[in-house]
Amino acid sequence: MTNIDDFTSQYGIVKKIDAFGYLDYLKKNPDAPRKHGKVVLVTADTPLKASRGEGKTTTTIALIDALRHHGIDATAVLRQPSMGITAAGSKGGASGGGKASLTHPEIIDWGLCGEMGAIEAAQNLLVSFAEKAVDDGKLDTVLVPRVSEVPSRSLRSIAVDYGKNKGNVAEKTVLTPTCELMQIVVLSRSMDEIAERVGKMIAGTIDGEPVTFAELTDMWRITNILGDAVKPALTETVNGTPVYVHGGPFANVSVGIPTLVSVELACALHDVVVVEAGYGADAGAQKWLDIASREYGAQWPSAALVVTRATTWRDDPDRQWRYPFHVNRLEKLGIPTFPLVNLWEGEDDQIPALQETASELGFRTPIIGNLFRDGGDGLLDQLDGFVTALNAVDAPSQPASHKGEDVVDTVRWIAKNAYGVPADRVVFKPGFEESLADARELVANLGRDLNDFAVCAVKSPATMTDDDTAAADERTVTLKKVEARAGSGIVQVNLTTSLTTPMPKIV
Amino acid sequence: MTNIDDFTSQYGIVKKIDAFGYLDYLKKNPDAPRKHGKVVLVTADTPLKASRGEGKTTTTIALIDALRHHGIDATAVLRQPSMGITAAGSKGGASGGGKASLTHPEIIDWGLCGEMGAIEAAQNLLVSFAEKAVDDGKLDTVLVPRVSEVPSRSLRSIAVDYGKNKGNVAEKTVLTPTCELMQIVVLSRSMDEIAERVGKMIAGTIDGEPVTFAELTDMWRITNILGDAVKPALTETVNGTPVYVHGGPFANVSVGIPTLVSVELACALHDVVVVEAGYGADAGAQKWLDIASREYGAQWPSAALVVTRATTWRDDPDRQWRYPFHVNRLEKLGIPTFPLVNLWEGEDDQIPALQETASELGFRTPIIGNLFRDGGDGLLDQLDGFVTALNAVDAPSQPASHKGEDVVDTVRWIAKNAYGVPADRVVFKPGFEESLADARELVANLGRDLNDFAVCAVKSPATMTDDDTAAADERTVTLKKVEARAGSGIVQVNLTTSLTTPMPKIV
Repeated sequence: MTNIDDFTSQYGIVKKIDAFGYLDYLKKNPDAPRKHGKVVLVTADTPLKASRGEGKTTTTIALIDALRHHGIDATAVLRQPSMGITAAGSKGGASGGGKASLTHPEIIDWGLCGEMGAIEAAQNLLVSFAEKAVDDGKLDTVLVPRVSEVPSRSLRSIAVDYGKNKGNVAEKTVLTPTCELMQIVVLSRSMDEIAERVGKMIAGTIDGEPVTFAELTDMWRITNILGDAVKPALTETVNGTPVYVHGGPFANVSVGIPTLVSVELACALHDVVVVEAGYGADAGAQKWLDIASREYGAQWPSAALVVTRATTWRDDPDRQWRYPFHVNRLEKLGIPTFPLVNLWEGEDDQIPALQETASELGFRTPIIGNLFRDGGDGLLDQLDGFVTALNAVDAPSQPASHKGEDVVDTVRWIAKNAYGVPADRVVFKPGFEESLADARELVANLGRDLNDFAVCAVKSPATMTDDDTAAADERTVTLKKVEARAGSGIVQVNLTTSLTTPMPKIV
Repeated sequence: MTNIDDFTSQYGIVKKIDAFGYLDYLKKNPDAPRKHGKVVLVTADTPLKASRGEGKTTTTIALIDALRHHGIDATAVLRQPSMGITAAGSKGGASGGGKASLTHPEIIDWGLCGEMGAIEAAQNLLVSFAEKAVDDGKLDTVLVPRVSEVPSRSLRSIAVDYGKNKGNVAEKTVLTPTCELMQIVVLSRSMDEIAERVGKMIAGTIDGEPVTFAELTDMWRITNILGDAVKPALTETVNGTPVYVHGGPFANVSVGIPTLVSVELACALHDVVVVEAGYGADAGAQKWLDIASREYGAQWPSAALVVTRATTWRDDPDRQWRYPFHVNRLEKLGIPTFPLVNLWEGEDDQIPALQETASELGFRTPIIGNLFRDGGDGLLDQLDGFVTALNAVDAPSQPASHKGEDVVDTVRWIAKNAYGVPADRVVFKPGFEESLADARELVANLGRDLNDFAVCAVKSPATMTDDDTAAADERTVTLKKVEARAGSGIVQVNLTTSLTTPMPKIV
């Protein structure tokens, strides 16, 4: 009998799974056995700075280890850590910590099975074909950025053919995980879909008219390069709980979630699938809900945990409104939402005070523990409420799509729901409307409507509004710039304190 | 008992072997069983153009399949094909063809296990640290190039921080396989040696003084990225003969041989180890002999095959001196050297004429076959002489090193021996002597002597001299430029029709 082992291969110390093949097999064999796992979203308070995690991965690992201990078939799906950022020293790894760790972080944090390298090569090959199109007179402007897995602020703006006869051709370079091809890998459910989406990517323009890659090159080049990169990796926690790792876009400047097929694969094999989305609830969780679930058919979460540090939540009076805002927002969406406070060493004595604050705020009973120190053991006797709530959810609800609505209305809706800023305080920076009109016209020239694209907010991971320390009725969200990604079907909207280019300085 | 299986892991459809670990184990356990395989070098006539192979890989595969059929434990060690070149369409794959093929070329040709991607990320991280050093005032000139696995002629000259306040910083980008870090991976026998060599790489200069990476960053970043990339891959021919694939530098602009540890690993496990070196005998074979064997302790070949196409050898009167030159040169070095003519379809009737020409030239009996069509079967009854000659070689001789000799004298020696051009016709292009003096001073400032570096000729793969069609007594070799690579210990000397930057145009 065919089963998941037929789609699984050993790759060094991890396994890789042909998720496309397995999910296709399940589709074609409706009677083949499978599970219908529920998605649990692990998200977090908005971090005080980008490099400082609240402990989502650590929490995710502790949670699945604890659920497993209770006899529940739980797993987690994580994004692949950005090796370049780790290697450059901008951020530590992202494979948990202490007793809540993955085995072999030296593999997970340091390039896994070459997935990111393959995506980098494929996106850069597309740029090379765009440059060739400039040489051939088929393009006069290159719009697709080069990518680099390792950061350097010097790469934010580059010129190719520098000092050559045909003049300096300006290009930009972004971090590999943030590129459109990564979004395509994250959102696609087959290699054919990837090829189709890459073909729709805008290479650049000639005389203002967009040219797609389908007009410039053959897609076998890209799909051959992607080869095994589209297969999720299977690793495990130090306690033996399975963990899938696949896809690595950033939640500040991209969709910030693991690949949809890795989550769907996990749901077919396990009862509870914990999905970790990047940065705060205003970033990765917003994107799981409003991009993945609403627009790309991903499962609506059956429960959520919002991770915070005691210090983040309590010690910054100007920003402490953010944590209850996140918890309450998810609850209002009908998602049973549990506060989880990830303690640092020496904070155990704060538990009663934290519990009291949670109670005053009308939260569900908070889950509190030092998960680095204690791992899943720190959660064992705190999960009854969570498990009960999860069991009480029948089929996850089907969320409404925003497709066809005006892009700005969708951004206003996000600002209101995800950042707490009403429509009349969503303001336009000079140039925004021109940028929007340009993007609208660009895709209209391809016979497409920008309002059918999913909105992806591009913003600082550490802020929700233009000034989070302002009074609640004075907070604003400024819209700055629009970029249409015709392949992934995403319209990137830069707002508040977004980076101009996601290419951090090396530290 | 410890054996090779303890150092072997499955990676998808190939295996990867911890060659560093295994060779270290053998060194520490002198009584552990091992073989002492002999190295056979497969090289070729100088190709008429870079993109046109004579069929070295096809020959190599057919040869080991045929030897295996005769009960000889033969294997081959190949370089990893350049995925970027294949994807861009500049060249087909490099995993043999027809009946003389590797299984799963879709893996071998398309990125293998991410080795090249890891080397690319590591070398680019070094460049990022050099750029940071510019920001920090520790460097004013970056000398280490960015790398890209996919080609684009537009990348030959780039400026970073383009249009920014600190001014346009000129950099260049070369193909990943050609970079110094790839040379280091090819020539090193442990991760410690890699770290030591990377630390000695010159990042750039400040006020003309060289600065090495040991002064700028920590080597764990590089060695962590390289992780599994330093492990040779083990695959097999369609007939089940084992083949090792590792390392991918180009023989025109770099050392053009597989990693030394992959060859040493194969020699410990098999009786006959066929090593394929890149391009013609004037390129890869010259580099195996004069760089790997003379300067880095690689085994001197016990036999050689020089592959040609009937058309290359016979149909270009102006260049047909090259083939007998290569065969005779290797014989004169004491290496039993066999001509091998790899026929195309429809050329079978030329065999008698080819045999007669070989006889007139005083060659050993040539091996002739259509190896694409017939694979190893085409060689089965032609290998007696080869096997006899191979068995007759006792211990391979120990070649003399050129270390300490003047760099120009070593180049003259190469020109005479490998290209047939005497010392008085080795001429200097204006600027060469300044370039040499600069390189000499640069390394002298590090307390090192350029004469201790191994000379690597950088030249077109399709020519041996400034004009191969000139009369024998008029051929010249022009020396153009010198670049010291203090990490790999190589001095790159550009000569004849060398490319300025190894970054082909996309086709």
